[in-house]
Amino acid sequence: MTEFVTICEVGPRDGLQMAKTIMATPTKIAWIEALAAAGLREIEVGSFVPAKLLPQMADTDAIVRAAVAIPNLTVVALAPNLRGTQAAIAAGAHRVSIPVSVSEGHSRANLNRSPDEQVAEIARIVAWLRSENHPAELEVACSTAFGCSFDGVIPEAQVLRVVTALAQAGVTSIGLADTVGYANPGAIKSLVRAVRAEIGPVLHGLHLHDTMGLGLANALAGLEAGIRDFDSALAGLGGCPFAPGASGNIVTEDLVFMIEAMGFRTGIDLQALIEARKILHAGLPAEPLHGHVAKAGIPRIFRAAA
Amino acid sequence: MTEFVTICEVGPRDGLQMAKTIMATPTKIAWIEALAAAGLREIEVGSFVPAKLLPQMADTDAIVRAAVAIPNLTVVALAPNLRGTQAAIAAGAHRVSIPVSVSEGHSRANLNRSPDEQVAEIARIVAWLRSENHPAELEVACSTAFGCSFDGVIPEAQVLRVVTALAQAGVTSIGLADTVGYANPGAIKSLVRAVRAEIGPVLHGLHLHDTMGLGLANALAGLEAGIRDFDSALAGLGGCPFAPGASGNIVTEDLVFMIEAMGFRTGIDLQALIEARKILHAGLPAEPLHGHVAKAGIPRIFRAAA
Repeated sequence: MTEFVTICEVGPRDGLQMAKTIMATPTKIAWIEALAAAGLREIEVGSFVPAKLLPQMADTDAIVRAAVAIPNLTVVALAPNLRGTQAAIAAGAHRVSIPVSVSEGHSRANLNRSPDEQVAEIARIVAWLRSENHPAELEVACSTAFGCSFDGVIPEAQVLRVVTALAQAGVTSIGLADTVGYANPGAIKSLVRAVRAEIGPVLHGLHLHDTMGLGLANALAGLEAGIRDFDSALAGLGGCPFAPGASGNIVTEDLVFMIEAMGFRTGIDLQALIEARKILHAGLPAEPLHGHVAKAGIPRIFRAAA
Repeated sequence: MTEFVTICEVGPRDGLQMAKTIMATPTKIAWIEALAAAGLREIEVGSFVPAKLLPQMADTDAIVRAAVAIPNLTVVALAPNLRGTQAAIAAGAHRVSIPVSVSEGHSRANLNRSPDEQVAEIARIVAWLRSENHPAELEVACSTAFGCSFDGVIPEAQVLRVVTALAQAGVTSIGLADTVGYANPGAIKSLVRAVRAEIGPVLHGLHLHDTMGLGLANALAGLEAGIRDFDSALAGLGGCPFAPGASGNIVTEDLVFMIEAMGFRTGIDLQALIEARKILHAGLPAEPLHGHVAKAGIPRIFRAAA
């Protein structure tokens, strides 16, 4: 039986938050619908952060409410704290993604809190969700796990300390994020193994950026280390407003091509995915669209995994 | 002890032959000198083909004669046949790279010969070199080993037939080329293992293109399968004039970054390599320069392998 790899499209959140202009709400919804129609089953559609910080995300409540009407789609929303989580749940998000920076520098810049303070906030979120007996999923994304543009090299022990604290706080799904794109395939394999040794199957997925061009090589390293969940963004949109030098997410189209060409199944129709770029381009005409497969065209030898 | 990975820069040959304009001879020489000064120890500097077919390569004789004056540099020249090989040797090339297409379609388009006819030509080249008792190295590059834009999927058995015939003809160094960029990491590992099982250490290296964005992931797969020799081109120049849809070679700068970040040694100074792009840009101002590391800058956490 063909093994399945889950791709969570983060363009509408991680991609749009870096865009110079703001995509109109109906365009966002049309884009998310097209992504879901292409076969994506998980989409991070926005973040519940103050509109004055990220005006591109001001309509997240409306976006979540529209997205949950799409059949067979897990709607993910980012929330940096309990208040945001409550708003995400109220809007109907199926999963809330909470960031915690492993590095002090990025944590201060991004969340205005230390990593320990954010772990404590996440413990409060876990406790609140339990008290509500709410079925929504919680996932924690460990930012700057492979290096930080403020703090430089991040020792594995520092990541292990944070993931262990999160697991002890009751978090059951943790992802590792190469927020600034400093990872390399060796570091990916090493950290995945070290984290898995600490928290086992609580390690969920990888969130990779393509700053140095190593994005797909890093995804391959993750795949070989047993990871079966990856974030990516259509046309490689994205970055981090609070991580200088970070560039776009790995390109969903190219990631799907690689994974399917290797014989894994993603459930995604590559041609339909490429078509969805048109909506993105119409909604953000000034934004450069990345991706090799869309430019070269799907080669005649490509066969999606069956 | 840190393991060494050899990178052969093919920009002056594979890169320039696709350029829309012709780089002036003194600029080519200055560029090759800068590449060598950055630490590259193998450079494919041109090809001995009729000037009417590839006018960009018309000065290859002069380029080889200038390049062999650079200390500690293995000067490689491409030659499609015995006549070209004799010209390369006469100019002083240390190594001659002979292409053979695994696929009939690309072989006809590129060499106007069948694969078998080219294997026979290579046997004549081996015999001539032996009769001359010449110390020049011979390397054969198997084009379209991972798929062909004319013939589509290339079964492994077809590649094995060609490499076995080459080894029997006395060829002692064979590379596998993903001429059109159709490879994926699974195919790389599978073919490398199958070819090594047939011809052992005669399998030398990989020549990869980044058409689908999988170039570095494919290089990683090769590295993991034990390959320690890779071709690449500064700024990802290149393609194949007789392979529709093929795009540039893998980017030398990004490849060096990945390999060094993983703890292998390349002997290449990444900053000097990035500086060499200026000469390339001055010599071919209309050509787009690719590469993530040059754009993002070498991150502060990067340490070259010692």
